[in-house]
Amino acid sequence: MPGSEVRADCWMSEYMTPWDVYLHGLTAVLEHKKTPFQEMYLVETGAYGKALVLDGKWQSSVVDEFLFHEPLVHPAMIQHGAPRRVLVLGGGEGATAREALRWRTVEKVAMVDIDREVVEACRRHLPEMHQNAFDDPRLELVIDDALDVLGRNDEKWDVIISDLSDPIEEGPSFRLFTKEFFEEAQRALHEDGCFAVQAGPVAPGEFQLHVRLVRTLMAVYPHVLSYSSHVPTYGAPWGFILASARPLETRPDPETVDRLLAEKTAGGFRMLDGRTLLGLLQTPLHLRQAIEKETTVYTLAQPPRFFGKGSLGEKSG
Amino acid sequence: MPGSEVRADCWMSEYMTPWDVYLHGLTAVLEHKKTPFQEMYLVETGAYGKALVLDGKWQSSVVDEFLFHEPLVHPAMIQHGAPRRVLVLGGGEGATAREALRWRTVEKVAMVDIDREVVEACRRHLPEMHQNAFDDPRLELVIDDALDVLGRNDEKWDVIISDLSDPIEEGPSFRLFTKEFFEEAQRALHEDGCFAVQAGPVAPGEFQLHVRLVRTLMAVYPHVLSYSSHVPTYGAPWGFILASARPLETRPDPETVDRLLAEKTAGGFRMLDGRTLLGLLQTPLHLRQAIEKETTVYTLAQPPRFFGKGSLGEKSG
Amino acid sequence: MPGSEVRADCWMSEYMTPWDVYLHGLTAVLEHKKTPFQEMYLVETGAYGKALVLDGKWQSSVVDEFLFHEPLVHPAMIQHGAPRRVLVLGGGEGATAREALRWRTVEKVAMVDIDREVVEACRRHLPEMHQNAFDDPRLELVIDDALDVLGRNDEKWDVIISDLSDPIEEGPSFRLFTKEFFEEAQRALHEDGCFAVQAGPVAPGEFQLHVRLVRTLMAVYPHVLSYSSHVPTYGAPWGFILASARPLETRPDPETVDRLLAEKTAGGFRMLDGRTLLGLLQTPLHLRQAIEKETTVYTLAQPPRFFGKGSLGEKSG
Amino acid sequence: MPGSEVRADCWMSEYMTPWDVYLHGLTAVLEHKKTPFQEMYLVETGAYGKALVLDGKWQSSVVDEFLFHEPLVHPAMIQHGAPRRVLVLGGGEGATAREALRWRTVEKVAMVDIDREVVEACRRHLPEMHQNAFDDPRLELVIDDALDVLGRNDEKWDVIISDLSDPIEEGPSFRLFTKEFFEEAQRALHEDGCFAVQAGPVAPGEFQLHVRLVRTLMAVYPHVLSYSSHVPTYGAPWGFILASARPLETRPDPETVDRLLAEKTAGGFRMLDGRTLLGLLQTPLHLRQAIEKETTVYTLAQPPRFFGKGSLGEKSG
Repeated sequence: MPGSEVRADCWMSEYMTPWDVYLHGLTAVLEHKKTPFQEMYLVETGAYGKALVLDGKWQSSVVDEFLFHEPLVHPAMIQHGAPRRVLVLGGGEGATAREALRWRTVEKVAMVDIDREVVEACRRHLPEMHQNAFDDPRLELVIDDALDVLGRNDEKWDVIISDLSDPIEEGPSFRLFTKEFFEEAQRALHEDGCFAVQAGPVAPGEFQLHVRLVRTLMAVYPHVLSYSSHVPTYGAPWGFILASARPLETRPDPETVDRLLAEKTAGGFRMLDGRTLLGLLQTPLHLRQAIEKETTVYTLAQPPRFFGKGSLGEKSG
Repeated sequence: MPGSEVRADCWMSEYMTPWDVYLHGLTAVLEHKKTPFQEMYLVETGAYGKALVLDGKWQSSVVDEFLFHEPLVHPAMIQHGAPRRVLVLGGGEGATAREALRWRTVEKVAMVDIDREVVEACRRHLPEMHQNAFDDPRLELVIDDALDVLGRNDEKWDVIISDLSDPIEEGPSFRLFTKEFFEEAQRALHEDGCFAVQAGPVAPGEFQLHVRLVRTLMAVYPHVLSYSSHVPTYGAPWGFILASARPLETRPDPETVDRLLAEKTAGGFRMLDGRTLLGLLQTPLHLRQAIEKETTVYTLAQPPRFFGKGSLGEKSG
Repeated sequence: MPGSEVRADCWMSEYMTPWDVYLHGLTAVLEHKKTPFQEMYLVETGAYGKALVLDGKWQSSVVDEFLFHEPLVHPAMIQHGAPRRVLVLGGGEGATAREALRWRTVEKVAMVDIDREVVEACRRHLPEMHQNAFDDPRLELVIDDALDVLGRNDEKWDVIISDLSDPIEEGPSFRLFTKEFFEEAQRALHEDGCFAVQAGPVAPGEFQLHVRLVRTLMAVYPHVLSYSSHVPTYGAPWGFILASARPLETRPDPETVDRLLAEKTAGGFRMLDGRTLLGLLQTPLHLRQAIEKETTVYTLAQPPRFFGKGSLGEKSG
Repeated sequence: MPGSEVRADCWMSEYMTPWDVYLHGLTAVLEHKKTPFQEMYLVETGAYGKALVLDGKWQSSVVDEFLFHEPLVHPAMIQHGAPRRVLVLGGGEGATAREALRWRTVEKVAMVDIDREVVEACRRHLPEMHQNAFDDPRLELVIDDALDVLGRNDEKWDVIISDLSDPIEEGPSFRLFTKEFFEEAQRALHEDGCFAVQAGPVAPGEFQLHVRLVRTLMAVYPHVLSYSSHVPTYGAPWGFILASARPLETRPDPETVDRLLAEKTAGGFRMLDGRTLLGLLQTPLHLRQAIEKETTVYTLAQPPRFFGKGSLGEKSG
């Protein structure tokens, strides 16, 4: 805007599509390193507080992460009703575990992240995010490949939450967005368990990854639901998917949910309650139609090739 | 992202906050002029098609405008149930009128825009948006100041829709976001009428304008509801407000809504149906709490000073 | 800078290196089209006036083009002393021809440009640059490929000026920066003629193209001189090369040059006179050393692969 | 450029004019702090190595700093011929002192910088720049305000070099670009001494600060010379000024200079030798004309108000 006052000297750029760039003005770079798995930035933004960026892609910011982590975790927990054992895949910031641990019914949260250096840097720099979740005796931190962990898993989980970074070709996670992996996850779920997946942007023209992930989960689970939340620092509305062997309640009664949360959790929710949940679960028409038309299912033989947060790879292929 | 391929040479920048810049890659600048009221760009973006930009602020893009215009218009229309007379304030692209005209019950849509040059340029360049709404015999186009038009209005309207550009100090519209103006609108509404307002971003830390507009409307109308929609090219979730003398239905039955739409409209909705509406109306917890705490009401003596799409003016004051 | 006031909404970006971006704030896009040869933008910048951009690379701006065109043309003209016949290759803006026509000794300037649409757009939009050079009866405009024109040329020229756009792989000109082409040019030169070439940036770490062009010309001509000028909108100091069969005067007496210019030209110089010329011809030490060490000669079999204004292609190869 | 590959995620922006932005792609932020005097970034750029940025303005980069520091120091040293005592004002990187210490005739270099934290950070992070100049027993480092130091100075200096950051209003140095300060410097100079000043950009339309500094020095010294050097990371050609009570040699014989440098210095020059010096001293015509026309002299009552590297403050005033 002509006449605007600019406050930043230092910027992180993110490509939301091959044509759209979001420049986040920084006030500090807290840590920057190339780990064996990815390039990590821990920065402080002028508008949204501290943030984690992996391979050039925004993971979460202190000011708006609740709009990501609460919708990622609680719809699955509420569907289950009384989760005791929760498996978190990824989620290095510790915020996904933090939300799971909010439930008093929870006895164990196993958090599996491949990248020790990211987890340690988040633990050091982002106390606002993990809120000491790492010190909760119910948390078991496993530094390993989620695929290997699931492969040798012989426990049953009430809720599994996939909070993995987007499946870019160069990154560590693209195999974890395939039918084979979702089948592994299903084997590790209780029959009344629920699986929640962070599932890419749902902006029009940029939701191909999301829609195909829905179809891929539908090839494994009888009940699948797409929902989304506005996370401003992602520059796009963000998609999630619930999958379960049991029917999913898509029009829960808000007051019943509020009573459940009051009874079973320690509270402290910022965005989520019964009414918010009812809103979240109403997948809008254009997404329902896109899901209906989609036919591609991701497999290890044909995994997603997500390039940046736009799906450049797939679009040009 | 290292290794990303960039596709644009020419960019439009927009400040979402004083620290956050969205760069939209362009493929063409279709028209650019300074009208007596504002600076207008009509551009073609690489990812989101043609777009209108006024005073450096994104108004709408062909690819995602349905995520703005459908939620702006139809919740008010559905609340009323059988709107016959609709007054649109602003909305130069013609897309707001287009949505109102989708209702077969509608006999007249009066569209009041202050800037003839913007309306004409949109009519010329954006047929995908207006879809010949300007040629509908039910449409009356009035080039005038909305304040003056309401001041001398002696008709009663079933639905009034405020689709005015954000109240930046230099722009033409900041007086139209005040208690006095909302009272004028109330006088022009049927007692069972409904008022819908485009009402600024609702990103955390950037929703002050929205929340204060809610309080300002609450000072005039007994029933007020905040809701929002994801519009990717705005770079932030976007807020709307419904206001009415009649109670607003916040948990409509989706099937009933779908029947109403089937009966009363010509169809063609892309995002909105009963289920989407049910989702839209569930204001999330953090916004409800922010509205509850807010006390400021905008008046002509103390109008909003919105600076860019972030509320720089207000924040620094 | 924190607190800076930004004046532009619309920007042209140029990559000076794969890591360095120059954003030029625009006030207008005058014309934009894809010709059969390249993508053309004619824009108006906030700080440097109207400008021509081809394939994303800045060609010239009204405010600082004299810092490019005067050093491109006059050192060769002055070396010759009384040029009558001048051949300009490229130079679609007409400013190179304009400078050549400043010489009263000149009887004919043939200007060969491959792209009629670029020449016509410049003629229409950039009168400040061509200053009616196209109407000078001594100018002959030839729309053709410079390689073909030189191939069938049977005239002898006193001065040949290569003002071709940089040899990017996708562009129309990379074959015109090779030994074979420079030999063609030599055949078309009088034995006392002089050849001047626009020859890429000379920023440290980005001067490989320039240095190799010097070596390529040294493989053809006995006397070769590298010189450079500061052109701010290029974001880098810019190199030129003089080549001749005759020895080049590298320490001309400024007063003698001033007398020559007074006698032989119509005046109107902005940057160039005897003293400026003396300065221009003193190639700095680091460039002389880099030229000495370089061994690569560009040929049709191994042409330059210049990518953007940084030499990304060559560096990564 | 369409199809360009971008290599950076993290950027430093600098406004070269209110309309022109240079984005430097970073590979690391080495240090960032707000000192009592200014905001400091020590960064690593992808193309130009490590760099120092103060108050959002580029000070120097490892790869191209020799194009700034050699022309800043040696023309004055060569004019003097056998400098023994050198006073450096500013120059926190240590590179200006490094160049002065290259002279074997030099017995003492006093370096006065106001900001201990900047000097210490440069000493820590930029050994390529200072090259251990801080350990040379001939160097005396004084952390103080240059104005105070000159005020109580009772020594005479052969060469004084002003390497102060640009006179932005918020910064620590704008009083050091005034007639009063230049008079103080004159009192501290031997009668055959020479004063060298870093003196702002000389891009057309952006050289007002430079031209006025020349006029300001001309109000104090009988002999004044403007010269400039291409420093790519500054995004503009950069000006310097020599001032002396003795006539300045503007057409030195290159071979004589080379013999002087061979005899009196330890060598190691990258850009400067006799021929380069002869080129540097030939102020181009357009700058000579602009200096001639200028009448403003900066005083403490009317100091420069340089805003960013463009002269926004002055232009709009």
